[in-house]
Amino acid sequence: MSSNGKERDKQREQNQTSSPPGDSVLEKPLSRRDMLRLAGTGGAGLLLGAAGVGGIMGAFNRAATATVETATASKAADTIEFYGEHQAGIVTPAPDFLLFAAFDLTVSSKEEVRKLFQAWTKASAALAKGQLLGDSNDRLNLPPSDTGEAAGLSPSRTTITFGVGATFFDARFGLSAQRPAALVDMPAFGGDELQEQWTGGDIGVQVNADDMQVAFHAIRSLARIARGKAVLRWTQEGFQRTGKADPAGATPRNLMGFKDGTGNPDAKNTAKMNDIVWVQQGDGEPWMAGGTYMVARRIRIRVEVWDRSTLGDQEATFGRHRDSGAPLGGSKEFEAVDLKKNGENGKPLIPVNSHMALARGDGSIEILRRGYSYSSGMDHRTGQLDAGLMFVCFNRDPRKQFIPMQQKLGQSDRLNEYIVHTGSAMFACFPGVQPGGYIGETLF
Amino acid sequence: MSSNGKERDKQREQNQTSSPPGDSVLEKPLSRRDMLRLAGTGGAGLLLGAAGVGGIMGAFNRAATATVETATASKAADTIEFYGEHQAGIVTPAPDFLLFAAFDLTVSSKEEVRKLFQAWTKASAALAKGQLLGDSNDRLNLPPSDTGEAAGLSPSRTTITFGVGATFFDARFGLSAQRPAALVDMPAFGGDELQEQWTGGDIGVQVNADDMQVAFHAIRSLARIARGKAVLRWTQEGFQRTGKADPAGATPRNLMGFKDGTGNPDAKNTAKMNDIVWVQQGDGEPWMAGGTYMVARRIRIRVEVWDRSTLGDQEATFGRHRDSGAPLGGSKEFEAVDLKKNGENGKPLIPVNSHMALARGDGSIEILRRGYSYSSGMDHRTGQLDAGLMFVCFNRDPRKQFIPMQQKLGQSDRLNEYIVHTGSAMFACFPGVQPGGYIGETLF
Ligand code: HEM
Ligand code: HEM
Repeated sequence: MSSNGKERDKQREQNQTSSPPGDSVLEKPLSRRDMLRLAGTGGAGLLLGAAGVGGIMGAFNRAATATVETATASKAADTIEFYGEHQAGIVTPAPDFLLFAAFDLTVSSKEEVRKLFQAWTKASAALAKGQLLGDSNDRLNLPPSDTGEAAGLSPSRTTITFGVGATFFDARFGLSAQRPAALVDMPAFGGDELQEQWTGGDIGVQVNADDMQVAFHAIRSLARIARGKAVLRWTQEGFQRTGKADPAGATPRNLMGFKDGTGNPDAKNTAKMNDIVWVQQGDGEPWMAGGTYMVARRIRIRVEVWDRSTLGDQEATFGRHRDSGAPLGGSKEFEAVDLKKNGENGKPLIPVNSHMALARGDGSIEILRRGYSYSSGMDHRTGQLDAGLMFVCFNRDPRKQFIPMQQKLGQSDRLNEYIVHTGSAMFACFPGVQPGGYIGETLF
Repeated sequence: MSSNGKERDKQREQNQTSSPPGDSVLEKPLSRRDMLRLAGTGGAGLLLGAAGVGGIMGAFNRAATATVETATASKAADTIEFYGEHQAGIVTPAPDFLLFAAFDLTVSSKEEVRKLFQAWTKASAALAKGQLLGDSNDRLNLPPSDTGEAAGLSPSRTTITFGVGATFFDARFGLSAQRPAALVDMPAFGGDELQEQWTGGDIGVQVNADDMQVAFHAIRSLARIARGKAVLRWTQEGFQRTGKADPAGATPRNLMGFKDGTGNPDAKNTAKMNDIVWVQQGDGEPWMAGGTYMVARRIRIRVEVWDRSTLGDQEATFGRHRDSGAPLGGSKEFEAVDLKKNGENGKPLIPVNSHMALARGDGSIEILRRGYSYSSGMDHRTGQLDAGLMFVCFNRDPRKQFIPMQQKLGQSDRLNEYIVHTGSAMFACFPGVQPGGYIGETLF
C-alpha cells in the first residue's frame, strides 16, 4: 500500500471506529429469535442478562411449546454452520443476498492481527446462529454491544467467508515467506477499467444471508470489532431473486435476462470440489490446505446497450437460449453442450467467441462461480444505471483457472461489448475452523 | 432546470435509451409464472406468441391442475392491484424492497408527456400482475420487448406509484397554472446537506416489491419505455427485513436498531387517511382530489458515531426503549404515549428534544411514513458506510404537515447528531386510475 493510502487509512480509522464489544463479546449468547419471543411474554425487558433468561424462557416454553418448536425447526433450516472442515459460503447453498467487504489492516504486529481474527471468529459463529453479540445490550451507561438491527430476525442462512489478499503478505507482519505462490498479483485483463474504490484489500469478507438487514448487521459488526485494527476499504451489496419470488428454485437469471449458473459444477460433488476448489496437501503452502482462492470482480453491465440488441445477438453472445437456458440449437437447460456441432450454414451453432464457448474451452479448466446481481443507483457521469454482476468465484489455483480463463474472455468474449470490469480483488481463503480455533490459525 | 442541466440530459438520453417496446407493448400479456410452467412442459420454446399460448396452456392445465391452482392462489396473495380509487403503494402493505427513481422529461409538449404516461400506465398494470412486457420476446431479429430478468418470478406485491415535482409545472408544458399551491418548493431545513445527485426531478416513481430483482425490472422497464422522452435523474434502493427473516411480521427495526413505524397511523383507517393523506375535493387543484404528496428524503445515518453512544443516550434520542419499542418508562410497544409524564427527577420521562416528542408535538400534525433502510457501499471521502434511511412519507398538504414537522426536527431533534439529509424531493401523486385510463389523466 502506498504511504498516501496509509494516511487515508488513519483518517478513516478515526471516522469509522466505534466502541468495540471488547473481549466480553459473546460470553452470553442469546438468540435473536429468543429475544423476540421473550418480548411477547410481557415485555418486562427484552435484552436480559443471561441470568434472567432461563427463568423466563422456562415459563414461556411451558406456555407455548408449539410455537417454540416451530421456531426451532425453522431456525435449524435457516442456519448454516460456521465451523467445519472448510469455511462456509463456498460450497454451501447460496442465500438470497451478498454483502462483500474488503478491509485494510491498520495494526503493525502479527499478534494484533491474530487477536482480530480470534474476535471475528467468535462473532461470526454467533452471527451464523442468529445470536446477539455481547452482554452490554441492557446497560444504559454503555454502548450496546450489539447494534440491534437484526434483533428478532432468523439466522437467515448467514455465512461469513474470510480471505487475505496479496498486500497482507507485505513487510508489515513478517509473513512474506508464507505468501502462497498461487496468490499472484492479478494481471491486467483486456477490457479492465478498474477503479481503486472497488479494488484490492488486505482482507476480503464475503457475507451471504437470506435477508439484507441480517447481512448488513454482520458486516457492520465485523467493522465495529475491527476498531483500531482495520478499516473498511470497499463494500458491495448484491442480490438474486429471492426464494419467495421463486419457490421452485430455478436457476436465477442475471440482469441480462439469462439463466446464470447452469454450467456451474455441482458443489455437492466432493471429488469435483477437491479437484477444482479446495487446495490440497502438497499444493504449496501447507497452511492453505482445505482453503481456496476467492476472486471478486465488480462487473458493470451496460444495461442500456444490451437492451438495444436483438434476441439473436443476445443468444449468440452467451451461446445459450434466453428462455430455456438451453445451449443454442438445444431445448433443455441442462442438456449436454457440443461446441463442435454445426448449424445448417456450416458454422458452429454456438459461436466460438460466445461467452460460453470461451469460458468452457475444452472443458479442462473449471471454477466455482457464486455471483450476485447488483444495483447501486446511477453512474452520474453518464446517466446510466450502475448495475451489473458482483462476480465471485472460487478456485484451487488462480494461475491455472481464473486467470487464464479471464485472459481468454478479456480478449475475445462477445460479451465485452456489454460489460466493463470496474473492481477486482483476490483473496486466499483459509481452511475451515473447528470450535475453539480461529480463522487463520494454520498461518499464525 | 438550468440549460446546463438540459445539455446533460441530452447526453444522458443518448446513453440511457434503448429500444422501447413501442406501442405493441402489452398487447399479448403472458404471466411470468405461466412462462415458467410452460418451460416445464417440454421446453419447446418458452416465449411463445399469444397464438400458441392457449393450446399449450390448455394441455398443461389438464395435465397438472393441482399445480396450477396452487400457483394461482399464491399469485393472488402476491399481487397488489394497480388500478383503483387511489394509487397503490401508499396505504397498501409495504413489501420488502424499495427502488425509488426520479426522472427528468426531455420532451417539450404536453401531448408527448401524455403518451409517456399512457405507456407507463399499461406497463405498470402488467408489471403489478407479473406479466412479461410486449410481444417481441421470441423474435430473433428484434430486441426483446421484456428484458427478461424477472421471467419466472412471482408478482411479488409490486406497486408503482407516480408523482410529479415542482419543475414539471415550469414553462415547458403549459401547465404552470395547474401547479398545486401545496406543491411548494421545498425550503432549506436545519442540518440539510443535500447533494444534487439525490435531489429533485420532474417525475418521481416509487417501486416496491418483495423481490429486488422484480423491483429492478420494473424501473428498468419504465426507463426503457421513456426512451427519447425522459431520462433517469437519480435512483435509490432500499430494504427492510424480509418476511422470511421475520415471519411474525413485527415492526421492522431501522439501522439504528430501533423499531421504526410504531407511531405511524393505521393505513387501514379510511377516515384517518382521508384526513391526513388523501387530497379532498375542495383542497385546491381539483385534479389532485384522491391524490397525495409524496416526500422523499435520503437520510444518511452516521452509523459509526451512533454505535459509540450509550444505550441511555440512544433511548433518550428517540424517546423509546430499544428492546421493546415502548415509550420511555413504559413496557409495551403500542402503549399510549404521555409526553407530560415526569420521572423521579422531575423531568419528562421522554425528553422534549427527543425525536418522538418533537415529531409528535401535540398530536395535531400527522403524516404516513413508508421508509426503507439503505446500504449503498461506502462514502469514499470519509471511509464511512453510506447507509441510512430512504425516508418516504405521504401527506395531504406538505405546507401543514411534512414541512412544519421537519422544520422543528431540523432545528432541535437530538437525532441530528447522528444523521444528515443528503437528498430531497417532493412529488404530487395523482389520484388512482381505472382500467382504460392513465396516470395523470385528471391533469391533462
Ligand atoms: C457480467 C459478467 C458475466 C455474465 C453476465 C456472465 C453470464 C454467464 C452466463 C449467462 C452463462 C451461461 C449459463 C451458465 O453456465 O451459467 C455463463 C457461463 C459461464 N461463465 Fe460467465 N458471466 C460473466 C462473467 C464471467 C467471468 C468474469 C467468468 C470467469 C472468468 C465467467 C465464467 C463462466 C463460466 C466458466 C461459465 C460456464 C461455461 C460452461 O462450462 O458452460 N463468467 N456466464
Ligand atoms: C434517519 C432518520 C429517521 C429515523 C432513524 C427515524 C426513526 C424514528 C423512530 C425510531 C421513531 C419511533 C418509532 C415510531 O413511531 O416509528 C420515529 C417516529 C416518528 N418519526 Fe422518525 N425517523 C427519522 C426521520 C424522520 C423524519 C425526517 C420525519 C418527518 C419529518 C419523521 C417523523 C416521525 C414521526 C411523525 C414519528 C412518530 C411520532 C409519534 O407520533 O410517536 N422521522 N422515527
